[in-house]
Amino acid sequence: MKLHGFLSSSAAYRVRAALYLKGLSFEEVDHDLFAGEQNSPEYLAMNPQGLVPALEIDGGQVLTQSMAICEYLDDVCPKPALLPADPVLRAKVRAVALAVACEIHPLQNRMTLLRLRGFGLDKAQVSAWTHQIIGRGLAACEIMLSSEPGPFCFGATPTLADIFVVPQIHNARRYGMTPAWPKLLAVEDACLALDAFARARPPSAS
Amino acid sequence: MKLHGFLSSSAAYRVRAALYLKGLSFEEVDHDLFAGEQNSPEYLAMNPQGLVPALEIDGGQVLTQSMAICEYLDDVCPKPALLPADPVLRAKVRAVALAVACEIHPLQNRMTLLRLRGFGLDKAQVSAWTHQIIGRGLAACEIMLSSEPGPFCFGATPTLADIFVVPQIHNARRYGMTPAWPKLLAVEDACLALDAFARARPPSAS
Repeated sequence: MKLHGFLSSSAAYRVRAALYLKGLSFEEVDHDLFAGEQNSPEYLAMNPQGLVPALEIDGGQVLTQSMAICEYLDDVCPKPALLPADPVLRAKVRAVALAVACEIHPLQNRMTLLRLRGFGLDKAQVSAWTHQIIGRGLAACEIMLSSEPGPFCFGATPTLADIFVVPQIHNARRYGMTPAWPKLLAVEDACLALDAFARARPPSAS
Repeated sequence: MKLHGFLSSSAAYRVRAALYLKGLSFEEVDHDLFAGEQNSPEYLAMNPQGLVPALEIDGGQVLTQSMAICEYLDDVCPKPALLPADPVLRAKVRAVALAVACEIHPLQNRMTLLRLRGFGLDKAQVSAWTHQIIGRGLAACEIMLSSEPGPFCFGATPTLADIFVVPQIHNARRYGMTPAWPKLLAVEDACLALDAFARARPPSAS
């Protein structure tokens, strides 16, 4: 398998973590988002959304959207499971992953911040925007997880929720925030103690 | 089951369509998003994200995030299936749903548009923003679906992809756009010919 990503992309971080958790081997191709490589005709032919990550699987098919890719990996390689067996718990795990994937990440990714600059916001305003979005979003995740057992988001093993929450905490720091949500920080500690997350994690900006 | 939604919410439209497709009976509770009812302490205790939809299931548990809710309904009530059996095809269906749920909807929902106004954009700029987001996003969906068989997004029966695409086309019109993507319009026609979508659809703004 070939993962098309970018080292500092938190969405690619998610898929790397899932691949490492599953023990799957893959080649990684870096596309420089700062140079606009995701908008080249070659890349758009592979992923018309012009986004990373994309996973080229054996046979040449290309899968897009990090959550769809993680669910695919769980479908074809069920162990270790990224989702619990109980349907209600599965829904709760997915809801936390989606709270990051829908309500936080797209509103603070590079394309959106560039668009905000294009509409006239200055650097300080874009920074305030980013802090509002991430602050509000992660605060909701903290509450959603507050009564769940640790050390991971939902108990003794990492799930899709951890795979989405931990890269988002990384992004919060990248944008100059100091995350102070106790459950989320404990989850981050538990995840980064695992080889899969430690290897998947982009180098720290600091 | 009790669906907490709002008639004009396209995310609640998705869950209504899924519930009707499954033939499940439910009660609907409307929360007036314009009046800010989603931010009341009572609502936040149920869904700390302050978003609709939320589905109260038997036993009193509350599920949030429309995609997690639809996947839950597919888990507990597998027929008719909202996802194909083949893992690659499942990933492609989920990717289209997520292309709407992550890349379009959160960037054009009411909360984001109010935030843009708060950062100084005028009405015309917010309208331009909305058209850019929806135009770019649905154009990508059209390409992602271009080689898939009709009449639905992925063949002979509606899937999660249809459940997400059709409410987004509805939103495009609500924001004054005239969708002209042939595959998406054909999908919309096929879906609205079904009782489930016709009943789930909010009344047209026009």
